[in-house]
Amino acid sequence: MYSFKNDYSEGAHEKIMTAMLAANRQQSQGYGEDDHCQNAARYIRGKIGRTDVDVHFLLGGTQVNLTVMAAFLRPHEAAIAVETGHICVHETGAIEATGHKVISVPGMNGKLTPQGVEQVITQHIDEHMVKPRLVYISNSTELGTLYTRDELQELRAVCDRYGLYFYMDGARLASALTSKENDLTMEDLPRYLDAFYIGGTKCGALFGEALVICKQELKPDFRYMIKQRGAMAAKGWLLGIQFEELFRDDLYFALGTHANDMAALIRSALSEAGIRFFSPTASTNQIFPILSNTCIERLRATYAFGIWEAYDQEHTIVRFVTSWATEEAAVHNLIREILKQEI
Amino acid sequence: MYSFKNDYSEGAHEKIMTAMLAANRQQSQGYGEDDHCQNAARYIRGKIGRTDVDVHFLLGGTQVNLTVMAAFLRPHEAAIAVETGHICVHETGAIEATGHKVISVPGMNGKLTPQGVEQVITQHIDEHMVKPRLVYISNSTELGTLYTRDELQELRAVCDRYGLYFYMDGARLASALTSKENDLTMEDLPRYLDAFYIGGTKCGALFGEALVICKQELKPDFRYMIKQRGAMAAKGWLLGIQFEELFRDDLYFALGTHANDMAALIRSALSEAGIRFFSPTASTNQIFPILSNTCIERLRATYAFGIWEAYDQEHTIVRFVTSWATEEAAVHNLIREILKQEI
Amino acid sequence: MYSFKNDYSEGAHEKIMTAMLAANRQQSQGYGEDDHCQNAARYIRGKIGRTDVDVHFLLGGTQVNLTVMAAFLRPHEAAIAVETGHICVHETGAIEATGHKVISVPGMNGKLTPQGVEQVITQHIDEHMVKPRLVYISNSTELGTLYTRDELQELRAVCDRYGLYFYMDGARLASALTSKENDLTMEDLPRYLDAFYIGGTKCGALFGEALVICKQELKPDFRYMIKQRGAMAAKGWLLGIQFEELFRDDLYFALGTHANDMAALIRSALSEAGIRFFSPTASTNQIFPILSNTCIERLRATYAFGIWEAYDQEHTIVRFVTSWATEEAAVHNLIREILKQEI
Amino acid sequence: MYSFKNDYSEGAHEKIMTAMLAANRQQSQGYGEDDHCQNAARYIRGKIGRTDVDVHFLLGGTQVNLTVMAAFLRPHEAAIAVETGHICVHETGAIEATGHKVISVPGMNGKLTPQGVEQVITQHIDEHMVKPRLVYISNSTELGTLYTRDELQELRAVCDRYGLYFYMDGARLASALTSKENDLTMEDLPRYLDAFYIGGTKCGALFGEALVICKQELKPDFRYMIKQRGAMAAKGWLLGIQFEELFRDDLYFALGTHANDMAALIRSALSEAGIRFFSPTASTNQIFPILSNTCIERLRATYAFGIWEAYDQEHTIVRFVTSWATEEAAVHNLIREILKQEI
Repeated sequence: MYSFKNDYSEGAHEKIMTAMLAANRQQSQGYGEDDHCQNAARYIRGKIGRTDVDVHFLLGGTQVNLTVMAAFLRPHEAAIAVETGHICVHETGAIEATGHKVISVPGMNGKLTPQGVEQVITQHIDEHMVKPRLVYISNSTELGTLYTRDELQELRAVCDRYGLYFYMDGARLASALTSKENDLTMEDLPRYLDAFYIGGTKCGALFGEALVICKQELKPDFRYMIKQRGAMAAKGWLLGIQFEELFRDDLYFALGTHANDMAALIRSALSEAGIRFFSPTASTNQIFPILSNTCIERLRATYAFGIWEAYDQEHTIVRFVTSWATEEAAVHNLIREILKQEI
Repeated sequence: MYSFKNDYSEGAHEKIMTAMLAANRQQSQGYGEDDHCQNAARYIRGKIGRTDVDVHFLLGGTQVNLTVMAAFLRPHEAAIAVETGHICVHETGAIEATGHKVISVPGMNGKLTPQGVEQVITQHIDEHMVKPRLVYISNSTELGTLYTRDELQELRAVCDRYGLYFYMDGARLASALTSKENDLTMEDLPRYLDAFYIGGTKCGALFGEALVICKQELKPDFRYMIKQRGAMAAKGWLLGIQFEELFRDDLYFALGTHANDMAALIRSALSEAGIRFFSPTASTNQIFPILSNTCIERLRATYAFGIWEAYDQEHTIVRFVTSWATEEAAVHNLIREILKQEI
Repeated sequence: MYSFKNDYSEGAHEKIMTAMLAANRQQSQGYGEDDHCQNAARYIRGKIGRTDVDVHFLLGGTQVNLTVMAAFLRPHEAAIAVETGHICVHETGAIEATGHKVISVPGMNGKLTPQGVEQVITQHIDEHMVKPRLVYISNSTELGTLYTRDELQELRAVCDRYGLYFYMDGARLASALTSKENDLTMEDLPRYLDAFYIGGTKCGALFGEALVICKQELKPDFRYMIKQRGAMAAKGWLLGIQFEELFRDDLYFALGTHANDMAALIRSALSEAGIRFFSPTASTNQIFPILSNTCIERLRATYAFGIWEAYDQEHTIVRFVTSWATEEAAVHNLIREILKQEI
Repeated sequence: MYSFKNDYSEGAHEKIMTAMLAANRQQSQGYGEDDHCQNAARYIRGKIGRTDVDVHFLLGGTQVNLTVMAAFLRPHEAAIAVETGHICVHETGAIEATGHKVISVPGMNGKLTPQGVEQVITQHIDEHMVKPRLVYISNSTELGTLYTRDELQELRAVCDRYGLYFYMDGARLASALTSKENDLTMEDLPRYLDAFYIGGTKCGALFGEALVICKQELKPDFRYMIKQRGAMAAKGWLLGIQFEELFRDDLYFALGTHANDMAALIRSALSEAGIRFFSPTASTNQIFPILSNTCIERLRATYAFGIWEAYDQEHTIVRFVTSWATEEAAVHNLIREILKQEI
């Protein structure tokens, strides 16, 4: 059984494990106030070309999202997200549990549009409704699609027009930035966004996400927020070590590239064989082919993967996710198995 | 510089690191639904002699405490804790942030008393006040003291009398159960407690706490609670692996014993030299000697440790914490340094 | 200027004012523990034919809704409501502020359907999503439509199938139950619903809503919830007096009938004149005619009413609301003014 | 049976009832956006000599307190209150339910001291603890005592020193400002306080409290907060009318004076008879004599009053509360009855 079910089925990249071992018996300051965290933050600041941003290391994506919302928003303020956004459905109401409504809007290929944001603004007109205050996007998205620089710029403009914070969930940022279609750089991120996180869990780390806060007014007292939400790791240096490895020599991007390459192999082989795909997905690490139900039945004996939704009576959309750890041999086996069924 | 500041200054025990490495490239189910977690839960159930308890693995102590309170209590219900209890002061209002009041009461040597609980019950008489519903204790306590079996039994009785849940924070449970004065066993815990957690972070693990829910009515839907609070690790098997190692062959208790032994060395050497201690601390891994300010000034050049509070004009109560990783040589050096100053 | 903007533009029915004056200098028990409240509860229990329900008097609709959600739901549980439902848009995130997500679904003429509920259930499958737990409806709805007995029965059936609580917002219950198309009785309500409130503010009272809790498990400690949310009036007897008057001799239904009659006058006059209406509204106290923009412009000089939404370039949907206090003369004037413009 | 149990046992002053009746059939704007509210706010601004404050009318004291805390504080920020403060014990955890800790400190005669505040500041030093941010006082206090101008000034100074908001619960402000010992004026209030409320429920109104926000940064979006907490009355003009009457011709102070006078009659008569009092209470509308248990037993047949706490085996501290509605004849009867027993 080989899993293409998600991008967090394996541990960490060997460099990370080695670094953790090397530091294992050294004593470090707790709660993220250690040299590794400072060092990792320095690498990240270097990559995005800004020395004036705050960098915090948290343990997981839902945790970052809920801590951010609790910290950035006043009680009556709400987040806007595309209806396929992670915070809308897949976080067990974590944002609402901090007291804030998430306003969901239809999107285009899993992406939020400026029109979607404006529609929300138009509908929320007085104190009998929540006040939209933060725009949430994921890049790459939950459907494997990408935001272009132009799209970020337009969303930024609409945020500026209405006084909204602009926040990006970067659980799969590595895959996004190393996609062939991508035209964004790390340095673009603080230009357009008020805050974003760089996902480690899905790209080579055992766990860990690096939250970058760019906007000055969002910075004060953020460590209180981390602690209050139970998100401050006692052995915080474990996070620092991992992000040191990921950003010292661009390992992060090498791993993202590998994940995308593995997905590209599957995509091109299936496309060539005439297999269709759900939505115009970008070259990231998630692909959504439409397979026959008989093929799916056979595959399940040997592979784990996601069932997305029924396409028609005889076909189903499935999701394959590749990762930094996906083995090329497994990819070829998977392709062979699919083609055997579908041709 | 050697640190006696806390018991989370080093990484993990070598057995744990080895096990993590061995599993690093294996694919596992996410979110704690893997074999390691099941296996670890089985070991823990074995140790406490109960097959009918639920075991969940979370990442840190504050996270467990806030998830438990949010899950167990209705909105108007409150926790009772001794005023030195961790949830009262050192968790940035994490419990209150879930909507619940923590009622703090004075204790005896850091321990909650049945009289303290009864006093709260007597004062909370109608719907204009919160309803006390959960008793929180830590064992060993924040002052390094221990609950005896009799004390747990008495607290259980008062809980039964007033319909209160009884919950134990076991961040330092290893040190408690391996203390010379301890008369509690693992099997006692589910007899007296409705839920408790077994602390890994402070005893050999990189991170991780094992929450044990004994009472049937507290079990349903707890995984929703974990997810909602951002406490469900994507790579949950990392927690399973660590608790497998800690409980397969009683490593947990061996590590607790070591921590206590190291503290005992310091305590006895200082006692023999006539140095006094703050409160009648038990033989656990925290000690609170009263040192002269000149001694403290000298020690600080080479050692990290906690300043507890001023004792008199010339003396201060300090806190030394030992751990599973404390080196005996460092302990002897520390003792020598103190005695050099104080005698 | 005469207002058809809403049904809370005037004070209270004269009988209520008289009763309040009569009791004004009498001393009463505070916090709703007085004879008037008990008496009013007795009248309500009589009307619905059930002695085993709890009746609580609160001050306003949003307050009831948020107190109910906070009391009935565990943190991970969510409410389902039609997207035009009051809690979805017009309560400033009051439900989310208590920590709970409101799942909104499209409806039929402002009404929630069993299919809508089932769709939500189908999509919420595991602990990564909130757990749908309560179905919220308003009767009459925000669009002036009605639930039939069959529709309530079907929704009850779907609630039973999936273990959902069924709760009704009765801000405009008087108008609903006295509508010509209505086939529900007061006695039906506890048969189908686990809890509901009887709106006083919009039907003759200065303020006040009577919450009826039918399901046993939802009753305990509800007064704590009322107090905690700031919803327990010190002079609670003011609520009791008002509901005594409303339910001693069926004043409540007489007032609802009057409101409906006034709306019917407008509706039939406009229909006869060929003016169209938005959606098949029932015979309740809200009507949504489609008027020409020139007509609207003229009306505004003398009447207050709601602008619902643009219909086409030259027409707009407006909302007229009548109430227990609407004067028939004003209605005839309004009709005359509209017909002058539109014919 | 005559009640001295509290100051909210009767309805409203006749002038208020008359004004309500006069306006009863007039149509008004909803949600506090009517002329009465504007007018009442203007009177209040006049009394305090400041045109730049925001005035909001809410329904009750707990509601104001919880809305204020939710609005003014970020999630990690806490309120400081004296341990007898209303928000500490008698609001069913309403503040905690909005996510904020209330730090309680011992006081002097029910009053918070600058030393108490400073002690809290000293103990809360880093992000592992909540951040004290708001100082809460009640005037008159829950023990019937008063803050002097000097005391307010000193508390203001400590607030300035540590960046704390200063908020006053004025449920019994009328009694405070009309006390013989009082040296505060209405105009002093915005000098020292960032926000405070003027209690109507306990001084002549059916219900209603006027919140005054003086500090600019606390003003934005407060109406959202009111709505979100279910505290925005549909028929908000009812609040406006009541405060118009209370402040048009100083009725508020006349009523406060009457309440104090009635208490003074009891106090002086009992003092002359040698009956002792609990704590040095000020000349406000609450008095706490120490009566013999036999006397109390007899009184109970004819009078309602509060049992405060046991004094010794044979005596108990009781609480008598007078109000704007207390009848002088009843006071004399009470005195006669007590003296008959105690002398």
